[in-house]
Amino acid sequence: MINVEFAAGAHRLENYAKPLQRAFDQAGLDVDLRIGHRPQDVDYIIYAPGSDLQDFTPYSRAKAVLNLWAGVERIVGNETLTMPLCRMVDPGLTTAMVEWVCGHSLRYHLDIDRCLATQNRWEPFLPPLACERPVTVLGLGELGQACATALSALGFPVSGWSRSPRDVAGVTCHSGAEGLKDALSRAQILVLLLPDTPATQNLLNVETLSWLPHGARILNPGRGPLIDDDALLTALDTGQIAQATLDVFRVEPLPLGHPYWTHPKVTVTPHIAAETRPLTASQVVAENIRRGEDGAEFLYQVDRSAGY
Amino acid sequence: MINVEFAAGAHRLENYAKPLQRAFDQAGLDVDLRIGHRPQDVDYIIYAPGSDLQDFTPYSRAKAVLNLWAGVERIVGNETLTMPLCRMVDPGLTTAMVEWVCGHSLRYHLDIDRCLATQNRWEPFLPPLACERPVTVLGLGELGQACATALSALGFPVSGWSRSPRDVAGVTCHSGAEGLKDALSRAQILVLLLPDTPATQNLLNVETLSWLPHGARILNPGRGPLIDDDALLTALDTGQIAQATLDVFRVEPLPLGHPYWTHPKVTVTPHIAAETRPLTASQVVAENIRRGEDGAEFLYQVDRSAGY
Repeated sequence: MINVEFAAGAHRLENYAKPLQRAFDQAGLDVDLRIGHRPQDVDYIIYAPGSDLQDFTPYSRAKAVLNLWAGVERIVGNETLTMPLCRMVDPGLTTAMVEWVCGHSLRYHLDIDRCLATQNRWEPFLPPLACERPVTVLGLGELGQACATALSALGFPVSGWSRSPRDVAGVTCHSGAEGLKDALSRAQILVLLLPDTPATQNLLNVETLSWLPHGARILNPGRGPLIDDDALLTALDTGQIAQATLDVFRVEPLPLGHPYWTHPKVTVTPHIAAETRPLTASQVVAENIRRGEDGAEFLYQVDRSAGY
Repeated sequence: MINVEFAAGAHRLENYAKPLQRAFDQAGLDVDLRIGHRPQDVDYIIYAPGSDLQDFTPYSRAKAVLNLWAGVERIVGNETLTMPLCRMVDPGLTTAMVEWVCGHSLRYHLDIDRCLATQNRWEPFLPPLACERPVTVLGLGELGQACATALSALGFPVSGWSRSPRDVAGVTCHSGAEGLKDALSRAQILVLLLPDTPATQNLLNVETLSWLPHGARILNPGRGPLIDDDALLTALDTGQIAQATLDVFRVEPLPLGHPYWTHPKVTVTPHIAAETRPLTASQVVAENIRRGEDGAEFLYQVDRSAGY
């Protein structure tokens, strides 16, 4: 029997108990998963920020701390943590991002908000076909490429933009400063999937927003600082931007009273587009426990000196 | 110059003027499209139900009436109509249906309604991945197959059901009376795309609704009579069915005062899932005018004795 402590928040156990148990079963691991083992009995710790666990000293025989998140910035500096720490690399995260982007793109494409709002009125309206609705994805890393490809499979004409030239099948690729205007000029739906770097901060600003066609819609599941928030709010008020769905923000949780919360053209989603997914993350956890039991090297073990 | 009368409703010309002009240009046709030519000057009539045009007698030189709809039941019996009548077979209709079904499936999958409703609260929630969300499509004709295939490409595990056995790649196919229970038993999202026949009326009734998993969601872009409306309303009230989006009804427009209009778990869309699409329908119209000018046989000419 392997004792696994779930130090990732009681509320999260609800989502994780079944997928973890299934993953342990599939890996042939006999696991006692719970919250509140005696520390000295624990073999592995599943950890996520928000857990009360601060002092790892009593977990004297634990072989590893398995982080449920990709980021380890809130635990990597903990000096009581002397056993191996592994971060999460979750294949479900890309899948989830593709689903979020396709779902909200089709929502805007079909004007589903209008369907939900105009009850009691039989007023047929006809969206164009997806092949008449150009979509642009800014950022062609792993997530951007996956989303661009999926949007293209749904029939949208997809353009992509990245700093350095890329080649993605079925996607019209632009790059560099000079390519940005072309990439934006036809985008009826714009998806932001760039990393947060000094070069990408406020990439969407007064000038670049004006390059979009009038009435464009924006999805930001990438990073909050990509958008100059004041410029976006102004563009929403003038109608240059028709709607925006934002999953990420400069400050999270998005503070109460922020104009995004109440703006009728803005949908706020609480950073859920690319959260770790229980099904796939559980498989990574089980694989790492199997490796620990076999004396093999852990996957995604954190280099404490590098901090990730 | 070819004179084409647009007898399909002034409100529709807004959607059709540009795509028709583009299609005429691409076909090399020099067309004067308008509402209100002198009848004796008209070469072709584009027609849709709702037009004021009842008496075709003055259109003495018209070579054909080109119906914008698939159905011709409201014009085929008109005795003043002596020229050829063509119905619409629109490739965009299947595409549009696929987009509607994928869009509303992802809407339910991601719980987008909840995202739209819970503004001002940062409450992260985690939908499962599409691969954990079984979807069933009832009806595996052209539309059903196209939708099942597209849903499968989005990652949903898709089951299908048809009266006689079918084989669709990537779809678990069931058939016959005995296969229906299996097809329904895992469907978290159910899509109705059966034809309206005596055998399919009220197919979704008190008994078959109970075969669905608790909290299933229903999309009906098929035919109104497939659903026993009272049974569905009861199942929505008990929670057996969590939500339903209905595009078709026994009586259309859906009468004011019908419980579907105000039920909080029901979304009504006004029969828009599979309406003729301007872009693709315009290409069919242009092709038929080209054929008329070349003295070739029209596409989709109606056999007046058969009525379709």
